[in-house]
Amino acid sequence: MSKGLLWGGRFAAPPSARSLAFMSGRDVEPTPPYDLALAPYDLWVNRAHSLMLGRTGIVPAASVRHILRALTTLEERLAAGEFALDPAKEDVHSNVEAMVTELVGIEHAGHMHTGRSRNDQVVTDMRLYLRDRALEAADAILDLVGALIAAARDHAMTLMPGFTHHQHATATTWGHVTLAYAWAGLRQAQRLLAFLGTWNRCPLGSAASYGTTLPINRGLTAELLGFDGPEPNTLDSINSRWETAADLVHCLASMLTQLSSLSQTLILFSTREFRAVRIPDEYSAGSSIMPQKRNPQALEAIKAHAVMAQGAASTLMSLGGHNLFGYNTDQMWTKYVALDAIGGSVASIRAMAGVIAGLEVNVERLRELASRDFLGSTALAEALVSDGGVPFRIAKQVVEKAVALSEQSGEEQVTEEALRCSLAERGVEVDADLCTLVESQRAEAAVARLLHAGGAAPERVLESCGEAEGLRAALAVEVAGRAQAVRDARAACREACDAF
Amino acid sequence: MSKGLLWGGRFAAPPSARSLAFMSGRDVEPTPPYDLALAPYDLWVNRAHSLMLGRTGIVPAASVRHILRALTTLEERLAAGEFALDPAKEDVHSNVEAMVTELVGIEHAGHMHTGRSRNDQVVTDMRLYLRDRALEAADAILDLVGALIAAARDHAMTLMPGFTHHQHATATTWGHVTLAYAWAGLRQAQRLLAFLGTWNRCPLGSAASYGTTLPINRGLTAELLGFDGPEPNTLDSINSRWETAADLVHCLASMLTQLSSLSQTLILFSTREFRAVRIPDEYSAGSSIMPQKRNPQALEAIKAHAVMAQGAASTLMSLGGHNLFGYNTDQMWTKYVALDAIGGSVASIRAMAGVIAGLEVNVERLRELASRDFLGSTALAEALVSDGGVPFRIAKQVVEKAVALSEQSGEEQVTEEALRCSLAERGVEVDADLCTLVESQRAEAAVARLLHAGGAAPERVLESCGEAEGLRAALAVEVAGRAQAVRDARAACREACDAF
Amino acid sequence: MSKGLLWGGRFAAPPSARSLAFMSGRDVEPTPPYDLALAPYDLWVNRAHSLMLGRTGIVPAASVRHILRALTTLEERLAAGEFALDPAKEDVHSNVEAMVTELVGIEHAGHMHTGRSRNDQVVTDMRLYLRDRALEAADAILDLVGALIAAARDHAMTLMPGFTHHQHATATTWGHVTLAYAWAGLRQAQRLLAFLGTWNRCPLGSAASYGTTLPINRGLTAELLGFDGPEPNTLDSINSRWETAADLVHCLASMLTQLSSLSQTLILFSTREFRAVRIPDEYSAGSSIMPQKRNPQALEAIKAHAVMAQGAASTLMSLGGHNLFGYNTDQMWTKYVALDAIGGSVASIRAMAGVIAGLEVNVERLRELASRDFLGSTALAEALVSDGGVPFRIAKQVVEKAVALSEQSGEEQVTEEALRCSLAERGVEVDADLCTLVESQRAEAAVARLLHAGGAAPERVLESCGEAEGLRAALAVEVAGRAQAVRDARAACREACDAF
Amino acid sequence: MSKGLLWGGRFAAPPSARSLAFMSGRDVEPTPPYDLALAPYDLWVNRAHSLMLGRTGIVPAASVRHILRALTTLEERLAAGEFALDPAKEDVHSNVEAMVTELVGIEHAGHMHTGRSRNDQVVTDMRLYLRDRALEAADAILDLVGALIAAARDHAMTLMPGFTHHQHATATTWGHVTLAYAWAGLRQAQRLLAFLGTWNRCPLGSAASYGTTLPINRGLTAELLGFDGPEPNTLDSINSRWETAADLVHCLASMLTQLSSLSQTLILFSTREFRAVRIPDEYSAGSSIMPQKRNPQALEAIKAHAVMAQGAASTLMSLGGHNLFGYNTDQMWTKYVALDAIGGSVASIRAMAGVIAGLEVNVERLRELASRDFLGSTALAEALVSDGGVPFRIAKQVVEKAVALSEQSGEEQVTEEALRCSLAERGVEVDADLCTLVESQRAEAAVARLLHAGGAAPERVLESCGEAEGLRAALAVEVAGRAQAVRDARAACREACDAF
Repeated sequence: MSKGLLWGGRFAAPPSARSLAFMSGRDVEPTPPYDLALAPYDLWVNRAHSLMLGRTGIVPAASVRHILRALTTLEERLAAGEFALDPAKEDVHSNVEAMVTELVGIEHAGHMHTGRSRNDQVVTDMRLYLRDRALEAADAILDLVGALIAAARDHAMTLMPGFTHHQHATATTWGHVTLAYAWAGLRQAQRLLAFLGTWNRCPLGSAASYGTTLPINRGLTAELLGFDGPEPNTLDSINSRWETAADLVHCLASMLTQLSSLSQTLILFSTREFRAVRIPDEYSAGSSIMPQKRNPQALEAIKAHAVMAQGAASTLMSLGGHNLFGYNTDQMWTKYVALDAIGGSVASIRAMAGVIAGLEVNVERLRELASRDFLGSTALAEALVSDGGVPFRIAKQVVEKAVALSEQSGEEQVTEEALRCSLAERGVEVDADLCTLVESQRAEAAVARLLHAGGAAPERVLESCGEAEGLRAALAVEVAGRAQAVRDARAACREACDAF
Repeated sequence: MSKGLLWGGRFAAPPSARSLAFMSGRDVEPTPPYDLALAPYDLWVNRAHSLMLGRTGIVPAASVRHILRALTTLEERLAAGEFALDPAKEDVHSNVEAMVTELVGIEHAGHMHTGRSRNDQVVTDMRLYLRDRALEAADAILDLVGALIAAARDHAMTLMPGFTHHQHATATTWGHVTLAYAWAGLRQAQRLLAFLGTWNRCPLGSAASYGTTLPINRGLTAELLGFDGPEPNTLDSINSRWETAADLVHCLASMLTQLSSLSQTLILFSTREFRAVRIPDEYSAGSSIMPQKRNPQALEAIKAHAVMAQGAASTLMSLGGHNLFGYNTDQMWTKYVALDAIGGSVASIRAMAGVIAGLEVNVERLRELASRDFLGSTALAEALVSDGGVPFRIAKQVVEKAVALSEQSGEEQVTEEALRCSLAERGVEVDADLCTLVESQRAEAAVARLLHAGGAAPERVLESCGEAEGLRAALAVEVAGRAQAVRDARAACREACDAF
Repeated sequence: MSKGLLWGGRFAAPPSARSLAFMSGRDVEPTPPYDLALAPYDLWVNRAHSLMLGRTGIVPAASVRHILRALTTLEERLAAGEFALDPAKEDVHSNVEAMVTELVGIEHAGHMHTGRSRNDQVVTDMRLYLRDRALEAADAILDLVGALIAAARDHAMTLMPGFTHHQHATATTWGHVTLAYAWAGLRQAQRLLAFLGTWNRCPLGSAASYGTTLPINRGLTAELLGFDGPEPNTLDSINSRWETAADLVHCLASMLTQLSSLSQTLILFSTREFRAVRIPDEYSAGSSIMPQKRNPQALEAIKAHAVMAQGAASTLMSLGGHNLFGYNTDQMWTKYVALDAIGGSVASIRAMAGVIAGLEVNVERLRELASRDFLGSTALAEALVSDGGVPFRIAKQVVEKAVALSEQSGEEQVTEEALRCSLAERGVEVDADLCTLVESQRAEAAVARLLHAGGAAPERVLESCGEAEGLRAALAVEVAGRAQAVRDARAACREACDAF
Repeated sequence: MSKGLLWGGRFAAPPSARSLAFMSGRDVEPTPPYDLALAPYDLWVNRAHSLMLGRTGIVPAASVRHILRALTTLEERLAAGEFALDPAKEDVHSNVEAMVTELVGIEHAGHMHTGRSRNDQVVTDMRLYLRDRALEAADAILDLVGALIAAARDHAMTLMPGFTHHQHATATTWGHVTLAYAWAGLRQAQRLLAFLGTWNRCPLGSAASYGTTLPINRGLTAELLGFDGPEPNTLDSINSRWETAADLVHCLASMLTQLSSLSQTLILFSTREFRAVRIPDEYSAGSSIMPQKRNPQALEAIKAHAVMAQGAASTLMSLGGHNLFGYNTDQMWTKYVALDAIGGSVASIRAMAGVIAGLEVNVERLRELASRDFLGSTALAEALVSDGGVPFRIAKQVVEKAVALSEQSGEEQVTEEALRCSLAERGVEVDADLCTLVESQRAEAAVARLLHAGGAAPERVLESCGEAEGLRAALAVEVAGRAQAVRDARAACREACDAF
């Protein structure tokens, strides 16, 4: 039993600290002040703004140099874990200014807040923060998609029942199912890239909402922060603070909703009754009292995070509307809502990638289920169409009757005899061989015929894996390129400061 | 300027630390682990359960005594602020058991978890926690209601326009308006008492969801924890964990929605354009750049908390449904959602009580507004009905025309001349004196006639203040009684433990 | 196959029109104008208001008599299905006044709108409407609770695994599970009665929000409409229009969330893999292409309605806050949200009652599942405590090890041998007979020991059924009494009108 | 007074029927069955599918020709308003098949449902429906943006206070404010185009979720329906039905949230107290009792629709998650939620365009407000920085004190004298002329200096208008191109059918 856990006696190895933290939620871990997450971005914004003030001559160069040196000190403190926010100073912006003032005196630090407001500072900090999180989320999604494609390749021939309404519908493969989630994941990654494209403009210089009478250079600060340019309207930048957050959280909530369905699938498939998959120990938990339990706790946590993200997306919009234009304090809460939802979502995506990578699929059990419960009825009706020339609506009625007859004799697929009776009763004649027709019910035969685009025939699934992999690789290049551009901008800003 | 603030040069006194913390949200304050808030309740539950195990003989008395002594030690640590949760131990329940084990050894502490599970522990902890918070919220609401009634008494004769659609409608008084929110508050307090009545039953003994094969005494633990009795079904207790939280958060969200409307009212009334009220400095904030600003920041924060509470109420239900019966981990998130929403809501109610108590009302400005914009038109139409015997629909048409005529001559109330023309044009004859009729438009005259139940006539408002005060006092007695019963149960449990 | 359905060939009988309509949602049925649902209430309110105007002498008796006669005509039209709303006339209030005007002329009908506004009319109509719907919902819930209690009695000895985390936890019975939902339902019914108590006050006379200068008698109209008295503040009545709706929808959303969990349970239990229950044909649907399908469509619809009700509860509050006091048009949308959510919720409760009443439970399958997967492990650990004197924490570790050992030899419950090894390994000695201890794992033995309050032992479940039935009966009397009081008030109002 | 309205005596002209319908919500208008809106799309999908069945030889050409002829008849009925859905037939898909069967007999119509299911039909219908609605919404947004840009040009020199926290902040112009909403609108239009790009793939052929064993040609049907190609996975197509709707509703909710803020702005600005704008009569409503009222009813309706859209976005996701993969009936409700939200949103955007186009702005009043309340304080502090060389933090403190001094003497902007005292007290010396410095407070002077990118200086606003107009035109071309492509595909499909 792991140190501290009340369970785990039956586990090969207890979950890692990271997985345990994910499954324990916020029970025993404190949440740091939310502005701490913004601190690295706030220091970067301070650099860019100060350098701009120096370059434009709005502030004397000597003071700018003092400020920049102080910012270097603060960056070092932050890296060393020695950057503590003083609650008496409201927010990270006030804290940073106070720290710089302490380091270099008000005669220099007093220039820092020239031509800006905390309103445009926080919006700019958040843009930088959300940009990094979106890149991180896209990266996590592409990892998960990779795991799903790998599973699809492995299980392109793992026959199983496809479900609708939680009931067996027609035959498919586990490969086709996992590939469905891979394609869904690729769509979410594309949406994140669209998010990054839409919002990579710089709000700095909006000041309180209406800009400044000083001759600031917004193009320069935008460049120093790695943006494509300044936002085209200062008021819109502040007004729409909620919208950036709502947009990213919408993307993540959409992803999480997909993962909620995948989680539910795996939870059901891991029940005693389905016995179709086994969740890795790393993502399971035991019980404090029941010795035999292995609970799919990480998957349940993902479901919870999906609900949280959905709620967050709606709350962000509700915080954003209703008000007169210009900054209103209610918008401050968008920060907490967004940070919580994003953190939970990214962790969920990572956890799901781990679950998929370590999942054991009970191939025999799935194949066995695929042989039952008249799963091949539709394939039989379609064979009556293609091989027997019967209109589908009539073919379906014939099979419906044949199912009922076969069921009475305790069968789980339509017998030749039942089919013959049903055809006769409906007065339908077919030239095809009844024995061959009945064979079409077999899952293997049925799946082999799912040859159209997007179908579950093994060759089609493998082909689709290739396409998905191609798209995944292309998106990964784009994500990596954007991430590198951010790092480059940061380094360039630092160098320009050092050179000033 | 207050130490650390970037504003406040124009304030008589800066906001208190408490108010500042409310207005700063979670920017610079860390959030403790959520289970820390449950610790005092968990220790109480441990006492009750251990004592029951001893009394029923399920566990040897000696072991129970060791456990109880260890719990006393933990209570002392908690009181001294030396109770730290170890994140490696998942939750407060595991932590407490580990601490007791460390203090008295597994041979005694190993008995603690007999006949229970962490599932019923947390549900019971939450019931106790929510009970205390509901009492606290009810107390805060009654304080606010007291402040609103006091304002209503003070302003029973403060004439003003009543608004509909943000437009001047008919005359009323500030007393009548504040009294509307007082009555709404009383309804919320009653709802909290209903909440307390519904949920004061004990889930302990539900174990993982299905009870225990050991002969526990659920009636005893219920009594020791100040409940009215055990919950009647162990599965329902665990299944419905979300429901208790959703119920309380619904009550608070309802209250906060009322406060959101009251906040919006005060924010508008404090604009330069309305100039109708002045928000106390204690609940205002300045700007980091604009020297002249006084922002109604606490009221904006209340609006944000209202949105948060609304979102929380919906999220709690969404977390609760969808699942197979029996405990599922997604329910763990109900804890975080509930604690956040409750904390923000109670702080908001307290802040509003402070705003109302310190509010300066610009009586002259309100009275002046009440003399404009044809505010008395409906009163005039009604005078045509009562004094002139004209059917209302016709009276309205007559006044409508008279308004148009008077407006053309730049008036802001109907003139005798315009009324005469309009009556003539419509062919209506009245015996009443036109001069007297026109007088009925005056806000003072109109309000004096609002004599029906619930009306704004000063004597009616004062009478209603008395009734509201009576109800408030009765509810306060009930809240205090329930709070005392909780304290008594706690003390009795402690004594019974000491005596064991 | 039923006329018009593309499926059903395998069904004994197709679903009834009512069930089919429930399962088809709004695909093929138009939604009538929402004000049509208010029409009967609007006519009642018109009666009460007109009679009051007559009794107080505000309006001449002759005109009142003409109006009342016209209202009788309109009631007859409504009963005959000949009451059509003219869209050019905005709402039911304008329509009714226009109809009366057409019938008796403006010289009489022109008096109708004296001393009121459409604002208080619609709020009063809604109170009457919501009161009837709450009574209807309470009635439906008590029916469902009756069906659940009946199922609990029938299945007090139907052994099955209790689930947590979708995994087998410890043994219970189907009776205990259904009883959990019965108790939950009783709580919802009590909440509806609290709703009825809180809101049975009359807003009429609030006019646009600020009352009227005419000497109306609000006590009289309140009485004629079956209210306990007038609302104590006219502004609060209008301001809080959203709150009444939000309160009722919260109650229903809470109920529906419970039903969502029950639906999910039944959907899972009816899968091929669980095979634990069979949903009645009446609440199932087939597929347009798969001949073998029986889909639990009504239960899925209930899950959808739960989400809709949750969303509605949150939307109602969001519509209610944010605004300056006094009527604002956004509140109009509370009507649509409330009516949709209430209609769907009540239909869902009725459908679930039908499902429960017609459900076939596969008793053998459940019993078989209860014999597997180490379901008795906790009972065994507890037997080690009670019969062997081992501290629970150690007993759990012993059984955990014994489970692992037994699992290796392909068993599904702990063997005597494995228990012996595990005890030895842990160095624990027990005096109890190992054979007897091992016996305690059997579901029947374990359930028989769940004797504490709220437990699953058959005698305890039957006892609890009796208590639930007693509460159900008491609540039914209260609901019936309130419903009769409404009918009485309506009849009395009609008589008083006739007698005027 | 308009026929049927209880108000309007004071209106130049009553609102049009369209505006009245928008303001009356659903009170008096019935909602048609939701599948009626899908009928034209369902017929198109039937055409494409039937033609494909014919071309591939799956169905005999003669039967296909009969079916296509029948579809032409149904299209004619629909155009003539004679297409009635029979509620006994569940949905539009069953209805259409039944109608075709009635027209050409089951021997031909019995082939229609070959190789498909109602699941892929409805998903494909919805894609087509949502595509048209997205195009319509984008068109409406670009209209609105056009009106906003026009207003921005007209009011590039209309001085006014910018607001933050509902308080006067610094000077700006009405042109800059309207342009903020124009840029926000352009972002929403771009998001709609991204939506159109993401989702223009064809789900048809997914059948129940797992495709068909028949050799259908999904590429062909995709082309006939104007899609870029088939969806790459049949299961994902059905699984993600909610996601398409949620994505579009997110876009619209984002737009509506912006409009909610703009509505709130206009509602406040049209109050008696602000007197800054006058809402066109066309979008106003009167009162049934208050003769003088002009209520901003359309704007309030827009606020309600914003809340509805926000709720819908969240409900759609909640309906989508939680379930096992494959179709589940709960998804059916996504249709109702989406259609309601989309209808209300598009109508709201159109209404706002009308409001903006007809808005009267009280230029004098805005200018007057801009001269008060120390609006120029920040400009003065910034002048101390730029012209006097004072560090901003000190400049702000100096002005803060000067504001306090000037306020004491009843001024509304800082006097030269107060500035001199404050400078002296703080010990700050400046070389600039105090008289010139004080001049910088004037709104005109301050706005003229807002010259940075995105600023409110008139030349900057006009320049930004040009850029916004350029983007608007480019987007309009793209929207028109996509709309034309849809019409072309439809015509081509029709022609191909005729030629078969």
